[in-house]
Amino acid sequence: MKLIDKITPIEEDFSKWFVDVVKNGNLIDYGPLKGTLIFKPNSYGIWENIQKHFNKIIKKINCENVYLPLLIPQNLIAREKKHIDGFAPEIATITKVGDKKLSEDIYIRPTSEVLFAQLFKSEINSYNDLPKIYNQWANVVRWEKTTNPFLRNSEFLWQEGHTSHSTEQEALEFSKKIIQMYKDFYKNYLALDVIVGRKTENEKFPGAEITWTIEAMMKDGKSLQAATSHYLGQNFSKMFDVSFKNKDNKFEHVFQTSWGLSTRSIGAIIMGHGDNRGIVIPPKVASIQVDLIEIMANKDQRVSEVSEKIRSLLENNNITVRVDKTNKSVGFKVSQSEIEGVPIRIEIGPRDLENNKVLIVRRDNIEKEYVEIDNILEKVSFLLEDIHNNLYKQSKERMQKNIVYTNSYEEFKTLIEKNKFVLVPILKDDVKLEEKIKEETFATARCIPWEITPPKSNDICILTGKETSYFVIFAKSY
Amino acid sequence: MKLIDKITPIEEDFSKWFVDVVKNGNLIDYGPLKGTLIFKPNSYGIWENIQKHFNKIIKKINCENVYLPLLIPQNLIAREKKHIDGFAPEIATITKVGDKKLSEDIYIRPTSEVLFAQLFKSEINSYNDLPKIYNQWANVVRWEKTTNPFLRNSEFLWQEGHTSHSTEQEALEFSKKIIQMYKDFYKNYLALDVIVGRKTENEKFPGAEITWTIEAMMKDGKSLQAATSHYLGQNFSKMFDVSFKNKDNKFEHVFQTSWGLSTRSIGAIIMGHGDNRGIVIPPKVASIQVDLIEIMANKDQRVSEVSEKIRSLLENNNITVRVDKTNKSVGFKVSQSEIEGVPIRIEIGPRDLENNKVLIVRRDNIEKEYVEIDNILEKVSFLLEDIHNNLYKQSKERMQKNIVYTNSYEEFKTLIEKNKFVLVPILKDDVKLEEKIKEETFATARCIPWEITPPKSNDICILTGKETSYFVIFAKSY
Repeated sequence: MKLIDKITPIEEDFSKWFVDVVKNGNLIDYGPLKGTLIFKPNSYGIWENIQKHFNKIIKKINCENVYLPLLIPQNLIAREKKHIDGFAPEIATITKVGDKKLSEDIYIRPTSEVLFAQLFKSEINSYNDLPKIYNQWANVVRWEKTTNPFLRNSEFLWQEGHTSHSTEQEALEFSKKIIQMYKDFYKNYLALDVIVGRKTENEKFPGAEITWTIEAMMKDGKSLQAATSHYLGQNFSKMFDVSFKNKDNKFEHVFQTSWGLSTRSIGAIIMGHGDNRGIVIPPKVASIQVDLIEIMANKDQRVSEVSEKIRSLLENNNITVRVDKTNKSVGFKVSQSEIEGVPIRIEIGPRDLENNKVLIVRRDNIEKEYVEIDNILEKVSFLLEDIHNNLYKQSKERMQKNIVYTNSYEEFKTLIEKNKFVLVPILKDDVKLEEKIKEETFATARCIPWEITPPKSNDICILTGKETSYFVIFAKSY
Repeated sequence: MKLIDKITPIEEDFSKWFVDVVKNGNLIDYGPLKGTLIFKPNSYGIWENIQKHFNKIIKKINCENVYLPLLIPQNLIAREKKHIDGFAPEIATITKVGDKKLSEDIYIRPTSEVLFAQLFKSEINSYNDLPKIYNQWANVVRWEKTTNPFLRNSEFLWQEGHTSHSTEQEALEFSKKIIQMYKDFYKNYLALDVIVGRKTENEKFPGAEITWTIEAMMKDGKSLQAATSHYLGQNFSKMFDVSFKNKDNKFEHVFQTSWGLSTRSIGAIIMGHGDNRGIVIPPKVASIQVDLIEIMANKDQRVSEVSEKIRSLLENNNITVRVDKTNKSVGFKVSQSEIEGVPIRIEIGPRDLENNKVLIVRRDNIEKEYVEIDNILEKVSFLLEDIHNNLYKQSKERMQKNIVYTNSYEEFKTLIEKNKFVLVPILKDDVKLEEKIKEETFATARCIPWEITPPKSNDICILTGKETSYFVIFAKSY
C-alpha cells in the first residue's frame, strides 16, 4: 500500500478530483493497455455486492442466469445491419491464433443480442416456453477513443438481461418494468436518485425499437446514463428466426427486450457521493461497512479485547468489518478508512474505554459520537440505515434543484453552461436539431422524461419556433 | 424446451453418453464458434454455487477478490519466456479494431500471471504489505485443437488465485495448503474423491517451479486434472521486478503462487456421478435441489395447496425448489427432473394425499419412499446430506479399486488398456520416458502422489530396468 496522495479539491477541478479519488481509494490500477482497468478489492467488492442484491431481485421475476461466449464470428453479428453499424468501429477483432491466420474474423462481444438469439432459437418451441427471461454477468469490449475510469473503458463488466415474449404488449410492458426496477435499485442500494425516460431516436440502442434510460446527476451537474432497457420488437427474432407455435398452432416471431447495468454504476457512486476526502460508499454495497481502529493496542490489552468483541458481534449480525492489525499509524488508518469510503469507523482507545465508550465516526458527514459499548450494535445498525438515507436525500435534492425548464435557446445555453438538466420543447425526432445543440453547447438529449412535466403541454421549439408537444431533457454528460 | 432425446447407455459408448447428457440436461448449447459453449441455467447454476462456497472458504484465508483486464499487450506476456512458449500456440490475437490495424498485437489472457505481477508491483512496498492474497473470477481463452464440452473449450470460466509472500518457505507451504483446500472442496461440495500430488517436470505449468495437482477419476476410469496450485518461486517477480523492503531495510523479490479451479469441475461432476438417466448433481452445488411435481392439480386443489405449503417450508429453510406449473405431462416433468440431475423430486398426487403422504424419489439411486407431509423437511434435509455422502462414497470406492501398482511394462500396458490409474517406478524427470509411454499407450504422467505409497521404497524403472525411488501415477486422461 502506497502512502496516500493528496486529493485535488472537488470545487477546484472536478475531473482531477475524480482521477485522484479513483487512484487513491483502493479502487483501481490502470491496466497495461490504454482504457483497461484493474478493479482492486474496494471497487470489485462494490460490484460483488451489486451482483448479490441484483441477483435476488431478478430471481423474483423468474430470471435465470446463463453464460454465453465471449467470441462471435463476424458473419453472425453482421446479420442485423443497424446493430453492426452501431458497434463496428469499436469492435476488437481477432484475426489469428498463435501464428496462424484465421479464415474468418472473430469479434469480441460488445453486447450479446445475436448470441442470445441463438439460445432462444434452441430453447423456444411453443407459447408454453414463454416468456423466457435470461441474464448474464459478463465482460464486454468496446474500443472507446476517449477513456475514463469506470465511465468509459475498453473492457467493462455488466449484467445483460435478454427476454422473449409472445406478445408485443407483454414485451413492451416488461421493458418498462425493468427500467423502473433499475430506478428502484439505484435508490435502494446505491442511494442515488435518477430520472426515468425514453431515449430520442438518435440516441437509442442500435437495433432497438425503444430505449428506456435512467439518468443520474453527478456532483458537477453532468448526467450519467446509469442503466438502459430496450424494447427490441421483432428485429432480432425475425433476423435469426426465433419463433414459437401460438395457441392457434401458428408460428410467430417472439418479441424481445434487453437491458443492462454496468460497472459505470461505480463511477456514479464516486461522482454522486464522493467528497474532498475521497469516495463515500453507500452502506448496502460497501464491501467493508465498518473499520475498527485500535489505538495503543500494544500498551493496553483491553483495546484488542473490546475490538474482538465488537468485531464478532457485528459480524454475527451480517455487518462486514475490517480490523487492520498492522503497525501502521492510527492517523494512516483513519485516512485510509476515509479515502476508501468505509461508511463507519470505530476508534477504540484506552481513554474512552475507561468510560466504557468508543468513538464512532460516520463517513458521509464526518460526525463523531461517543457510544456506550453495550449500545454498539444498535448504533451501527441505525447509522448504516441513516447514512444510506442521508446520501439519497442529498442526491434527490440536487436533482430537484438542478432540473430547469426553458423555451428560450439563449437561456438554454446559459443553463447548460451551468451544468443544469434542461427540459425544453423541441420538434419531434429531428436529428439535426440535436446535432446543432451538441455542436454549440456540448449538451446531448438525455431523455424524454416520464415523471417531469413542462409548465404547459404545448410550447414553441427552442430552435425552430414551431409549435410542439415534445419535450426533451438536455444536459452535458459522461 | 425440446423433447428429451434418448441417452446412449454409459456402458455402450462413454463419449457418446457424455455428449448426450451434456446436450439434454439443460446444461449447454454449442456456441457459434467451434469449442465455445453456452452455459444454460443448470450448468451455470452449478458454477454460481461453486463460486458462492469457494468465496466463503478463501475469505477465511484473507483472500481478496479483484478483476484484471481481459487484454494483454504482446510485449508484456512475452517477457517470461517459458510462460509465453507454453501458451503461444493457443493465444487468440487481436490485430485490429473496426477497420484500423493496431500497432501492436494484443492477446486475450490465457491466464493472468503477468497482469497480477503489475498489480503486486504497485501494491507492495514493504514486508508489512505481505502476504498479498488475491483471487479473480474470470473468463480465459485458450484455442484448443480438440474440444470437448466443459473439459476443453476455447473459452472457459475459472478462478485464479495469485499470491505474494516474503519467504520461499511461506509461499511453498501456501501452495500446498491450497491444493489440500481444493481436495477438501471436491470432497465437501462436489462429492468427488481425488488424489493429490506433484506434476512431473514435463507436465508442470509454464513458468512454475512446482505444480501440485488433484486428479479425479471419471466413471470410465480416465483421469481428469481437477485443479492445480503452482509454486512460482521468483520467476515472475524477478522478471517484473516485484520487490519489497524486508525488516533489514533491504529489497528482495517476492515469492509467488498461483492456483486455479475451472468450469472443468462441471465436467468432473457429470463424468464422476452421471448415469444412464443423465447428470446427477451433488446437492450442495445443485441450483435446484428439489423438484415439486404436481399430479392432477387441475382436478384436486389440495395438490397445489400442499405443493405451495411444501415449497414455502423448504425455501424458508434455504432449500431451493422448482415447481413447474406448465401443462406439460407428469411423465415429461419426471424425465426432465431426472435428466437434469435434480437431487430430489417430490410427487404430490390426490391418492397419496388421502393418506397425508407424498412420494419422494432421490436421484442418485432412484429409491422411492412415501413420506408423511409433516416429516417432509426432516426427510429432505436428511436426503440432501445422504445423497452427498453416498455419491462421495461411490467415488472413493471407485478410486481405491482402480489404483494399481506394477513394475512390469507389459502389465502396465494391459492395466492402462483397462483405464486404471497405474503407479510405477520410473527414472526421475526423464521426459523421453514419459513421451515413449504416451506414444505407446496414450497414458500421461498424472502426478507423483502424496498419499499413495508403493510396496517398497526402491524398485526398478519399468522402462529402463534401472533402480529408482521415484514413483509416478500414469493414466489416460481428459
